[in-house]
Amino acid sequence: MADTSQKKQVVGWIGVGVMGRWMCQHLIDAGYPAVVYTRTRAKAAPLLDAGATWAESPAAVARQADIVFTMVGFPEDVKEVYQGDQGVLVGARDGLITVDMTTTEPHLAKTISEAALPLGVQAIDAPVSGGDVGARNAQLSIMVGGDAGAVQTVLPLLKRMGKQIVHQGPAGAGQHTKMCNQIVIAGTMIGVCESLLYGCRAGLDLDQVLASISGGAAGCWSLTNLAPRILKRNFDPGFFVDHFIKDMGIALDEARRMHLCLPGLALVHQLYLAVTANGGGQSGTQALMLALESMSQVQVHSAAPKA
Amino acid sequence: MADTSQKKQVVGWIGVGVMGRWMCQHLIDAGYPAVVYTRTRAKAAPLLDAGATWAESPAAVARQADIVFTMVGFPEDVKEVYQGDQGVLVGARDGLITVDMTTTEPHLAKTISEAALPLGVQAIDAPVSGGDVGARNAQLSIMVGGDAGAVQTVLPLLKRMGKQIVHQGPAGAGQHTKMCNQIVIAGTMIGVCESLLYGCRAGLDLDQVLASISGGAAGCWSLTNLAPRILKRNFDPGFFVDHFIKDMGIALDEARRMHLCLPGLALVHQLYLAVTANGGGQSGTQALMLALESMSQVQVHSAAPKA
Repeated sequence: MADTSQKKQVVGWIGVGVMGRWMCQHLIDAGYPAVVYTRTRAKAAPLLDAGATWAESPAAVARQADIVFTMVGFPEDVKEVYQGDQGVLVGARDGLITVDMTTTEPHLAKTISEAALPLGVQAIDAPVSGGDVGARNAQLSIMVGGDAGAVQTVLPLLKRMGKQIVHQGPAGAGQHTKMCNQIVIAGTMIGVCESLLYGCRAGLDLDQVLASISGGAAGCWSLTNLAPRILKRNFDPGFFVDHFIKDMGIALDEARRMHLCLPGLALVHQLYLAVTANGGGQSGTQALMLALESMSQVQVHSAAPKA
Repeated sequence: MADTSQKKQVVGWIGVGVMGRWMCQHLIDAGYPAVVYTRTRAKAAPLLDAGATWAESPAAVARQADIVFTMVGFPEDVKEVYQGDQGVLVGARDGLITVDMTTTEPHLAKTISEAALPLGVQAIDAPVSGGDVGARNAQLSIMVGGDAGAVQTVLPLLKRMGKQIVHQGPAGAGQHTKMCNQIVIAGTMIGVCESLLYGCRAGLDLDQVLASISGGAAGCWSLTNLAPRILKRNFDPGFFVDHFIKDMGIALDEARRMHLCLPGLALVHQLYLAVTANGGGQSGTQALMLALESMSQVQVHSAAPKA
């Protein structure tokens, strides 16, 4: 292993999407040697140009690294990357720390942590909030679960990627916290979309409505950031509907395991399924509006004629 | 009528509750002569001490005033105050302006406006957001519907009560805007409560969860202001459950008239009915948590033991 008192740890990075590429870049910029693997090698080109070296598999990354970060898509991808034939745990040595920054199942984070421990490996879960902009600007909120000593070791690296880093508890606690985040967002999204729908049908000028209500008790990130996009009929992703559905599905599954009834989340989840049924899976989460619009045959827009 | 170019208009004020008393006080402080009526005369004592004069009925208020403000409770109260035997319209003279700041039905605001017009009276609807604290500090958001000229006339007086005053359109538009406000809040409340419920059951320290999620895409007024009260089991009003149910009921009725489907609002409305079924009508809106807790037999609190 690298002598951490003198040299930077060798960082492994698996998953170079719209967020992972920036997060890894911040570590390279901070002087950490990086070993990279991702399914589509071409996506790694900017990082390889910046000095990272390529590895042929997650196992190969793990063999060369002191800390392996993963930022992939879905729980199945996380399973494959950690527990597959060429997975991280196959290449892991005693003392390795892994940090899964994908939003995935809390019980999967626990399972991986339990599988890692006999190998002398500490597996941390550290999902993030803040999107591609937060990743690029190193302004992410990072919700961390896992062994306290291992979390301390990786903290200086997490600080290169985020501004708000909180150790939430043992393995899985980071993922559970991310679920808390997504559950609030589900509520704000249905509130914002139904509010605009109502205001439009009532003949209001919705830009004026936002001027009245954004600064008070109805104020929320979604109202400030997504409502104006909806009024411009801009449904481009920020955050993909498909990914939000994944997250809500995880939260509902975990809630079911815990015998917990979440009627609001269940409803919003269903309405987002209606968005995908109409081909909106790759739209941004504000496309929830499209499902609500189709139910009532109305189209929301700026500067509606007065009633 | 008072010569408005030289003297302050005479203000009538009807309804002296936790908000109305402060709003009227601000006008008195600004030098407006005030005539007051409220159902329970004792509540008017502070305003009478401050120089206001008492009138025996809404009609008597209207006979003496240039502008009559009303801030009462429910739509039935608004109907009685304006259209009752001793109502404002009975005492109204040509040139009177009325301003109903109660949150009430948009179609009732239109009805009153239409009944007032043949009398030479302009009826404005101007519901507010900001609660008793906003009323006391003159920091309300005021959402105004009605004739543009009349709105211009009362604007200097509204500015004594609020910081954000937007003319939203014709009669009823202020009430419709307030409904938009309440619909967003319904969404944020269910999101915040279900999130805390999930986090508690998952064994998280909810103060730490709030530290992670309050500043990002889940950020909202309810999360910042009401979640900490919930964690302290403080269900005192801020804003009464009974009043919020009234508002959601109005929004759902209006939506039905407009053939608009609002499934999220309908669900939250039902859950708040469960709060009242358990005696929580005079609690604050954060008591939505009590209904969700009873469904899953869990009690949310700070510093939950780790899972």
